[in-house]
Amino acid sequence: MSKFLDGSLKNLQPYVPGEQPKDVQYIKLNTNESPFPPSQKVIEVLNEEESKKLRLYSDPETSVLVNAIAEFYGVNANQILTGNGSDEILAFIFRAFCGEKGMACPDVSYGFYPVFCNLFNIKYIPVPLKADFTVDVEDYKYIADNVIIANPNAQTGIFLDLEQVEKLLKQNKDRIVVIDEAYVDFGGVSAIPLIDKYDNLVVVQTMSKSRQLAGARIGFAISNRQLIDDLKTVKYSFNPYNVNRLSILAGAAAFGDESYFDACRKKIVSSRERLTKALQEMGFVVLPSKANFLLARHGKIGGRELYLKLKENGVLVRHLSDERISDFVRITIGADDEIDILLNKIKVILGEKK
Amino acid sequence: MSKFLDGSLKNLQPYVPGEQPKDVQYIKLNTNESPFPPSQKVIEVLNEEESKKLRLYSDPETSVLVNAIAEFYGVNANQILTGNGSDEILAFIFRAFCGEKGMACPDVSYGFYPVFCNLFNIKYIPVPLKADFTVDVEDYKYIADNVIIANPNAQTGIFLDLEQVEKLLKQNKDRIVVIDEAYVDFGGVSAIPLIDKYDNLVVVQTMSKSRQLAGARIGFAISNRQLIDDLKTVKYSFNPYNVNRLSILAGAAAFGDESYFDACRKKIVSSRERLTKALQEMGFVVLPSKANFLLARHGKIGGRELYLKLKENGVLVRHLSDERISDFVRITIGADDEIDILLNKIKVILGEKK
Repeated sequence: MSKFLDGSLKNLQPYVPGEQPKDVQYIKLNTNESPFPPSQKVIEVLNEEESKKLRLYSDPETSVLVNAIAEFYGVNANQILTGNGSDEILAFIFRAFCGEKGMACPDVSYGFYPVFCNLFNIKYIPVPLKADFTVDVEDYKYIADNVIIANPNAQTGIFLDLEQVEKLLKQNKDRIVVIDEAYVDFGGVSAIPLIDKYDNLVVVQTMSKSRQLAGARIGFAISNRQLIDDLKTVKYSFNPYNVNRLSILAGAAAFGDESYFDACRKKIVSSRERLTKALQEMGFVVLPSKANFLLARHGKIGGRELYLKLKENGVLVRHLSDERISDFVRITIGADDEIDILLNKIKVILGEKK
Repeated sequence: MSKFLDGSLKNLQPYVPGEQPKDVQYIKLNTNESPFPPSQKVIEVLNEEESKKLRLYSDPETSVLVNAIAEFYGVNANQILTGNGSDEILAFIFRAFCGEKGMACPDVSYGFYPVFCNLFNIKYIPVPLKADFTVDVEDYKYIADNVIIANPNAQTGIFLDLEQVEKLLKQNKDRIVVIDEAYVDFGGVSAIPLIDKYDNLVVVQTMSKSRQLAGARIGFAISNRQLIDDLKTVKYSFNPYNVNRLSILAGAAAFGDESYFDACRKKIVSSRERLTKALQEMGFVVLPSKANFLLARHGKIGGRELYLKLKENGVLVRHLSDERISDFVRITIGADDEIDILLNKIKVILGEKK
């Protein structure tokens, strides 16, 4: 830390992204990427003609992409804001709506939420999940601060029914409720149809997981026009051209290929069921996931130890340091052959196989 | 504005980017883009194989790009931070080093500086340029706050000699001096060689202008390792994967094609001289620009009127509302044929031609 760093940041603990190793070729099941390539329509639109246009700024309104999202979800273009990944969208939300209000969220959730609080000097209110890692919306009843729920929840994969989400929205109409749906396409149900019913709802999604575009960095918020306008005020005060030309095109093309989107997410869901069953047969406790990852623990081996042994064996999974889930490893649902190798390595590690 | 917007943002006036019209085909000389396509090396690296890898996150360290920049400028990789355009880099700088300290800058400069101050609740200290629009560093002598100088200056194109920059750096070693070199490659001299000499210097550059990659959104800071580490703390608390996969590759490829870079910027410089001379012959006052644009005014017609008439005639230039330069229009140095059309249209507007 230099002597020039502003005092408000002296204790800032940045988010630590999952390992992106450059040296060894790992089977990478640690950052919830898709095992499938982007849609062929994406590949086609990223052509030489478009590359040549990179001399020009991108459209700050990202209209092509916004229109594709609007059509897909049946909302108006002015109810959408796109960003450089959903992390940027989340940052805009924290800056726009918090400050006077704090942000409450489950104690086990996306690790970035407390970091945003720290960055913008926002009060962070962790609310303990129940013992089975589910959210009890009653716990938020008397909290006047804004609320953010990853749904399905980050780390656990557990989905909160929309009925419960509506309860949260109704409990206090003077606070914002953010539903972060990064993983919703793998068996959850989106809260997007509720945006016209509740003026305090903001839904966030990403194209990194179910649309196989993590490297293009595209996220978006869907809400009522007023809240989107507030978020635009922040965006245009931070980075007007926040989505690059090629990502705008890639994102629009991906939304235009619904059959590929459906095929990929269905395959992830069936692979998740297979992996869950196989792990359970080996004695693992597996949390009921509606995401493209699952959280699993085994009585014979600690989470960190299993992570390290798998890494030695060329398979990267994620071990999270949160105390409540430190017995677990988080495993991204990969391709069939990746899952087979993972299961084999685990068997060897558990001593069931040589 | 919704009732949910945080009180600190009620008066936030976002930055207004130059028009990006979608309807009519204008000759676009309003946002300082390059008239030339990106390097052929950029086109080649943006291939199908790389597009298929978009399912994976980008490297948060953007090593390929950072190494290319490090090699070009002869600095260490740990002295560089890349961002989603230099606007994002500037936002990180304002957040990292201001708060307790305000930010001082010329009263006529990049319009985003006061917006960042507003967004992060930072004291903004505009320091009047001299009557000839040059910076007098003596004016900053007793300012304890941080300083940012666009060099060449945004809007005017006027370059401040490095000798004067060093004076600024020496005047007060307890404040950060940011030199924003978005336009330095068109005749200015970079302050990068000074980073090891002054621990309070941060240099910012962009690939949007002289590297013809406005649409890829790449900017970077070069400084000593400590200040870069501070900026990384902010980046990793805001958006760890802030540069997308294809832009990392495009940026590295552009830095690898020095001869194309040189050819393009030389052409801009010679076109600028031609345009300056032609405008002067028509009676314009043209500020001495070292950028890829120039600021010009004519006694017979106001800045806004000329902008509007040119727009009617299919040529977009920029009129800036800052009071001190409202008589001027800002003209991006375009391709030869674009300059010819512009000059012809101006002649007609001034009544010299039918």
